[in-house]
Amino acid sequence: MTITITAFDRSPDGGKGLARDTRVRWALEEAGLPYAVRLVSFRAMKEPAHLALHPFGQIPTYEEGDLVLFETGAIVLHIAQRHGGLLPADANARARAIAWMFAAVNSVEPPILEFFNAKVVERDKPWAAERLPLVADRVRDRLRQLSARLGDADWLDGDFSAGDLMMASVLLRTRPSGILDEFPSLAAYVARGEARPAYRRAFAAQLAINAPG
Amino acid sequence: MTITITAFDRSPDGGKGLARDTRVRWALEEAGLPYAVRLVSFRAMKEPAHLALHPFGQIPTYEEGDLVLFETGAIVLHIAQRHGGLLPADANARARAIAWMFAAVNSVEPPILEFFNAKVVERDKPWAAERLPLVADRVRDRLRQLSARLGDADWLDGDFSAGDLMMASVLLRTRPSGILDEFPSLAAYVARGEARPAYRRAFAAQLAINAPG
Ligand SMILES: N[C@@H](CCC(=O)N[C@@H](CS)C(=O)NCC(=O)O)C(=O)O
Ligand SMILES: N[C@@H](CCC(=O)N[C@@H](CS)C(=O)NCC(=O)O)C(=O)O
Repeated sequence: MTITITAFDRSPDGGKGLARDTRVRWALEEAGLPYAVRLVSFRAMKEPAHLALHPFGQIPTYEEGDLVLFETGAIVLHIAQRHGGLLPADANARARAIAWMFAAVNSVEPPILEFFNAKVVERDKPWAAERLPLVADRVRDRLRQLSARLGDADWLDGDFSAGDLMMASVLLRTRPSGILDEFPSLAAYVARGEARPAYRRAFAAQLAINAPG
Repeated sequence: MTITITAFDRSPDGGKGLARDTRVRWALEEAGLPYAVRLVSFRAMKEPAHLALHPFGQIPTYEEGDLVLFETGAIVLHIAQRHGGLLPADANARARAIAWMFAAVNSVEPPILEFFNAKVVERDKPWAAERLPLVADRVRDRLRQLSARLGDADWLDGDFSAGDLMMASVLLRTRPSGILDEFPSLAAYVARGEARPAYRRAFAAQLAINAPG
């Protein structure tokens, strides 16, 4: 059954891999699944045809036969539950890997989203300069706790899993600000993710669309 | 196997059901599972013994034999995957219900968390009054899209599922600000959740601990 995902026709990051189709591509590559990509413009994303696939008018979406999914966490989990290589076989370890997926999207990503709003959306507000460091500290608080838990392990819980895929993808978004590099063990963790052949293929595929020039 | 969750020894909301143990209690009640509760203080949550269970030093946690979980999304999904009543049998419908769980925690909750930070954490900042309406509008944008998708259905996708349990739990947190009631269909959706016998039992159990006086 053909898998089709959506991605930006031109990603605002110019191909740095920060757009969220990259996580889905990465999971598909880890699972060894071929997929097609439909590119959508910012305008098209807010029109009824795309809103029928994604209630919040965003990318990525995932289509496979009759199934339509949105939310990268759900898409990656769907892939991981049906194919090898992304979740451990042991039931308890599997539940813990899924907990790290939720930690990525519900504990680590929210302060990063708030930082993005402070830095970009509220850029011209009178409070922007004074407030940004405060929001950056909220990101640091989380990264400090995460780094303490990771310790000197390679991955968050045993072998590489969908939990690491989501966490590394979320952490990547803190690199442009310099915050990721304040936590060397997390920077190395993300680099281990990026070094995986599946990530490299995913990255190259989105770059081919988004590279400037 | 005994299930033990953690909850605040005194919830800051005084028993309004906004603390996140309520969602886990709700899922356990829907599944008909008995559970024990260990109450923890704000101080104890940040100490090594609790941090070993929860890397971010929060409640709730979930223990069942050797398994320790954190993240309400993961805990509710774990319960839903092993017991009836919270996920549809059809594989595609199941994947879509899980997508709504992720939508609750990664698309709807982040602006609500930001609103909470603006209202409570940054209460005394010079920008507080001018900025709050802006952040409230971010919450409204999401609720508008969600309300458009819900339409006049009772639940987000077919029968009540763990997706609705998570979404209603997240939406509940917008009630004190008055924003929930600006969206009558979402307010009614939350009320349908609260009317479920399992929710009522969960609510009563947390109230018994947190009721003032
Ligand atoms: N929680 C969603 C977030 C999706 C999301 O934020 N997508 C971005 C691209 S990376 C988008 O489409 N932004 C355009 C917009 O929101 O208008 C997920 O993980 O899938
Ligand atoms: N994403 C987590 C959030 C957990 C959370 O924020 N818990 C709150 C109580 S509702 C807490 O423990 N707050 C105390 C603190 O963060 O210090 C989940 O869904 O389990």
